[in-house]
Amino acid sequence: MKTIKIGLLGLGNIGTGTYKTLEMNRKEIESTLGTGVEITKILEKDIDRDRGITVPLEKFTSDPEEIFKDPEIDIVIELLGGIEPATGFMLSALKSGKHVVTANKAAVAANYHALTDAAKENNVFLKFEASVGGGIPILGTLDGPLRANKFEEILGILNGTTNYILTMMTNEGLDYETVLKDAQAQGFAEADPTADVEGIDAANKLTILMALMFGKYVAPEDIPTTGISHITKKEIDEAAANGCKIKLIAHATKKEDGTIEYEVRPMHISATHPLANINKEFNAVFVKGNAVGDLMFYGKGAGPLPTGSAVMGDVMEIAKTILK
Amino acid sequence: MKTIKIGLLGLGNIGTGTYKTLEMNRKEIESTLGTGVEITKILEKDIDRDRGITVPLEKFTSDPEEIFKDPEIDIVIELLGGIEPATGFMLSALKSGKHVVTANKAAVAANYHALTDAAKENNVFLKFEASVGGGIPILGTLDGPLRANKFEEILGILNGTTNYILTMMTNEGLDYETVLKDAQAQGFAEADPTADVEGIDAANKLTILMALMFGKYVAPEDIPTTGISHITKKEIDEAAANGCKIKLIAHATKKEDGTIEYEVRPMHISATHPLANINKEFNAVFVKGNAVGDLMFYGKGAGPLPTGSAVMGDVMEIAKTILK
Repeated sequence: MKTIKIGLLGLGNIGTGTYKTLEMNRKEIESTLGTGVEITKILEKDIDRDRGITVPLEKFTSDPEEIFKDPEIDIVIELLGGIEPATGFMLSALKSGKHVVTANKAAVAANYHALTDAAKENNVFLKFEASVGGGIPILGTLDGPLRANKFEEILGILNGTTNYILTMMTNEGLDYETVLKDAQAQGFAEADPTADVEGIDAANKLTILMALMFGKYVAPEDIPTTGISHITKKEIDEAAANGCKIKLIAHATKKEDGTIEYEVRPMHISATHPLANINKEFNAVFVKGNAVGDLMFYGKGAGPLPTGSAVMGDVMEIAKTILK
Repeated sequence: MKTIKIGLLGLGNIGTGTYKTLEMNRKEIESTLGTGVEITKILEKDIDRDRGITVPLEKFTSDPEEIFKDPEIDIVIELLGGIEPATGFMLSALKSGKHVVTANKAAVAANYHALTDAAKENNVFLKFEASVGGGIPILGTLDGPLRANKFEEILGILNGTTNYILTMMTNEGLDYETVLKDAQAQGFAEADPTADVEGIDAANKLTILMALMFGKYVAPEDIPTTGISHITKKEIDEAAANGCKIKLIAHATKKEDGTIEYEVRPMHISATHPLANINKEFNAVFVKGNAVGDLMFYGKGAGPLPTGSAVMGDVMEIAKTILK
């Protein structure tokens, strides 16, 4: 029996969640595929941290080339985050003939064409389900069971931090600064929350969604983007008085003349709309296709295990194809 | 350029919706696949009915063998509904080396092993995304991006007729008989509503979901099933007083000891649960996986175009694979 061998770049929270997903579901994953699956090398300097998993020391390396040049490795999983060195590492892996799976929305959004072109030129897969919506299987669905549709519109709650803050402001009547501090204390917001609260993270994800849905690449910095740091209790109360909730929405719509409009901004969503009831750190994507009509997907948009679920789903999809 | 040729069994409402989905999105479908896609033969006696589409007369046949024995046909789409002759036709198609796509939950649920075994033996695909949840891409997701999970639970609103009736009873304070008559007049319920209102349709779909999620086949008639025809206004009011809505739920859960419990029955769902806000003819599926956590999918569970979207998604998935 062949074993699918994986090189993992980064053993932080998401890397650890991916490792755990494979460990806890190994029997089922291997039986579904009819093959072994093993993470054989891990690029990570911090080998001492207690992650709640047992990783044999000989798997660790500090040299990425050791992974790219290993002829036995089939798939490279990139979970470093950030645009560089992650993009450079993914390009090296693709050029070395490795399939690549990543959860890195910033790198995929910034370098969409360079990465997808490199995958095509080297006849390997590049998959990034985990980069949008965490565990929510939105990309594989748009490009899978829904692919017979012309897509007309997407409305996404794609950032858990801002949705948590807006939910607490709405439900508890707290102000922005108070909730942000609480979110930071609970681990729902980072010490520097700029990328989340200013909508940059949501814009990255909208770039990736538009590329898949409409075949159109718009760089994240070209998406008109407004965050939530200016939202006051007063605005939330006024929205509520009009039967609405304020949500940070990534929105794109294709007009009848073929032009696409897009933006990320806080929107007043009617309390009866399915997106109005997506609370706290949950994400949701509302899609309209010309055959399927309205669809909504809801789930955990972040976190080690939900993201690990999406990463390992991509690994299994690739394994299924290369084992044929 | 090769053309994928399709034989279609049945040009009723769903057959017509599938034909329309292909016609209206042909350019995008063919460009995605890099091949032509054509429905070349249609098994249908009623050639005169006005369906709002133009079908060349020479495509019609009244002899199914003409489709199964046509060496040019790659894929057979079965949209006749009912267990027979649909199952026999699908087995004939599979044994003739044709890939089969169907929306037929009754036939797939009743003859799951016979059909999937015939597909395996003849090394062809059998796909049935449209059989559960209509346009909601649940099967391809469970067996695709989510496949790295061990599934723990599923709660589904899988029947649009009963959800429409319960929604109108709840929101308008009407009684069962009044709403049923209204639903029949509007086309949301059939003249003989037994299969819907007694939960039989939902049980068929739960059989298919359990086979995919847990690898366990339970015949629909072995699923404890209670419908909604006994539900009174009083029960709905009492549920509301307790902060709940009554929904017809198809439920299966895998216990820690590996046993699976399953049933279809009206349940009291807390008004804060995502399933509580699924109204009228919409369907939703709530799934729990051990890595991904809670997920929900929401959309149109029936109708010609949503079902056509799922059928053509299956056709494209097969085409993508056989064109490699």
